[in-house]
Amino acid sequence: MWRDLRPIGRDADSGGYRRFAWSGADTDCRAWFQAQATSRGLAYELDRNGNQWAWLGARDHRDVAPGEAVVTGSHLDSVPDGGAFDGPLGVVSAFAALDELRRRGVEFAKPVAVVNFGDEEGARFGLACVGSRLAAGQLTVEAAHRLRDGDGTSLPRAMERAGYDPEAIGPDPERLARVGAFVELHVEQGRALDLSGDPVGIASAIWPHGRWRFDFRGEANHAGTTRIEDRRDPMLTYANTVLAARKKAALAGALATFGKVSVEPNGVNAIPSLVRGWLDSRAADQATLDTVVAEIERAAVERGQRDGVDVRMVRESFTPVVEFEHALRDELGRILGGARPVLGTGAGHDAGILSGTVPTAMLFVRNPTGVSHSPAEHATEDDCVAGVHALADVLEGLACA
Amino acid sequence: MWRDLRPIGRDADSGGYRRFAWSGADTDCRAWFQAQATSRGLAYELDRNGNQWAWLGARDHRDVAPGEAVVTGSHLDSVPDGGAFDGPLGVVSAFAALDELRRRGVEFAKPVAVVNFGDEEGARFGLACVGSRLAAGQLTVEAAHRLRDGDGTSLPRAMERAGYDPEAIGPDPERLARVGAFVELHVEQGRALDLSGDPVGIASAIWPHGRWRFDFRGEANHAGTTRIEDRRDPMLTYANTVLAARKKAALAGALATFGKVSVEPNGVNAIPSLVRGWLDSRAADQATLDTVVAEIERAAVERGQRDGVDVRMVRESFTPVVEFEHALRDELGRILGGARPVLGTGAGHDAGILSGTVPTAMLFVRNPTGVSHSPAEHATEDDCVAGVHALADVLEGLACA
Repeated sequence: MWRDLRPIGRDADSGGYRRFAWSGADTDCRAWFQAQATSRGLAYELDRNGNQWAWLGARDHRDVAPGEAVVTGSHLDSVPDGGAFDGPLGVVSAFAALDELRRRGVEFAKPVAVVNFGDEEGARFGLACVGSRLAAGQLTVEAAHRLRDGDGTSLPRAMERAGYDPEAIGPDPERLARVGAFVELHVEQGRALDLSGDPVGIASAIWPHGRWRFDFRGEANHAGTTRIEDRRDPMLTYANTVLAARKKAALAGALATFGKVSVEPNGVNAIPSLVRGWLDSRAADQATLDTVVAEIERAAVERGQRDGVDVRMVRESFTPVVEFEHALRDELGRILGGARPVLGTGAGHDAGILSGTVPTAMLFVRNPTGVSHSPAEHATEDDCVAGVHALADVLEGLACA
Repeated sequence: MWRDLRPIGRDADSGGYRRFAWSGADTDCRAWFQAQATSRGLAYELDRNGNQWAWLGARDHRDVAPGEAVVTGSHLDSVPDGGAFDGPLGVVSAFAALDELRRRGVEFAKPVAVVNFGDEEGARFGLACVGSRLAAGQLTVEAAHRLRDGDGTSLPRAMERAGYDPEAIGPDPERLARVGAFVELHVEQGRALDLSGDPVGIASAIWPHGRWRFDFRGEANHAGTTRIEDRRDPMLTYANTVLAARKKAALAGALATFGKVSVEPNGVNAIPSLVRGWLDSRAADQATLDTVVAEIERAAVERGQRDGVDVRMVRESFTPVVEFEHALRDELGRILGGARPVLGTGAGHDAGILSGTVPTAMLFVRNPTGVSHSPAEHATEDDCVAGVHALADVLEGLACA
């Protein structure tokens, strides 16, 4: 499976993947998914939002009684220059787990599906988990139709070009009602399993997280002739805020990152008129996150007063804490046995979106580098096999009971 | 004159000017210059590098004996969203000074020219003073032919599109040898005259200045899942360097500015792999500038070691100190009389480029805002008139002696 998937959307220079929603690489990944389904005799189904389903024990979702289906899978799209595992590991492991269960000769009591959710990373249109958000009714059709990529292409236009009907998208409660459990396997995006020495862990919760845009407005001026005391340089306020964010987050055990910045006019010999910086911040609980963001904003405003720079903070997105269903989580613990580590994560997932609608759980596979969203993300072959076995055990425990 | 020039290349939103070399707005400015020349009965001449000349007392430069011509003027192009005065004030004042001398009924003993140098700001091709550099032999034809704008259009292609011959460009020593004195009038780009209370001042020197590119290389990673202690975040090193640059410059009485930055991958939820920042630094003397830049580099490298970030500094351009000719400067002082302030400037000018080849001086007109390269740059009508009178006095003193 990996052999066919590996070259799709890979950048020759960086070695990273560029599998953006509704692009040519995405189309190739989708063809790969359909081929995997049909080669196993699974019933292939495309839902109204472009998510792909492969059914075992049902012709499509209408064959399934409410709350009966056991579903696993993840996504195949990537961030810019992403790694090979974030997303694909969950889909490949899902098919491999079905192969493993076939080898074990188990009899399924319930229908099982493998799913590939579309546009999980949001790399092209700026919003993550579009496929699952639409299905769960967490993104309106109107808002989805307004999404545009960096070239100004709208989501509907991009879907049309890829051969999909953008008028069909929308909530899919009738489909989700069939799902009794969704289990997403994912490469870990940190080093908790590496530090604990376990190949596979169970998710407890997704940290609350959000994005805040800071606008630092000063005054454009000549870098070579403006006296220091006459300057209103927003780059200074931005720089101080970046350092303050790291300090406040470290003290609170939270995360705060400025990874994106835009500058006007962005000329070497021009003091900027405007610096925009985007803050990504996450913490284990809401109160800590609120405190950290408030402290960063206060530090920015205080420094802005010194620099003669106006500071505005706007929250662009926010996802509250997601606690995965305790009953399903505990059942996974029982099925897998032993003392499997239970860990929180700062990253969003389709499983997090769906957790408000269906019982949802996640398995993590050890990533020895801890690196994510980069070609350096990794999982050893042994750990991938351990992940497949764990997922097979879980599917057997949930669907063959 | 201002009435016809004012609307050319003006952006309706910002109110600033976008008169980039060889653009449509530049062509319109050039047509304006030619019309001003011919309406006064001046002989219009275009040199091989696209600089425009308007001669009084000569049909073209070949009529002029070596070292005889008294030349004044400046440039008509602008930075992005530049102000109305930077450049045009020197050209408008030159024509107005000739009108004033005609009113005075003076008789010229020497030929006088008004000049408009092409592509002074370097806003389009990234190199300032291309017209005067080519003429003075400070830019080779090969290097000029390699210049490209942000859209990938080469300088030769842009010249061709505007109707000029890019194969004709090159050194013009025979022309410059005719120039006995070049006096450029320019709006001040700081507040020295505002603070001293004088409408017009004389330039002493252009500070040595340069541009340095800093590459901060860390490791791309997921902003939501990477522990603080596992990060190698180059944005932190960049931010600390921005603040260090301001501090070192302020202590030394120099200038240091980070006005341009680029980030990879520049994603909200991605720790950057690379932050590039451009430093513009200037000081009254070379030793101070060298010390300040070395201290900024040291601070960057030290912080980089703490952050696990590799720091490289590359000098992209450098212009040594330009002392305007003392004899001509002193003559301007005598002609203008009184205690005219003599001031240095951090900005580069065509006059600075030419000062290595011909005797050169500059006059500055008060700018009450001190703002430059922005629509907020300003000179009052009274001060503009004072500038014209001072320039007329200088031309009378130099050309009617």
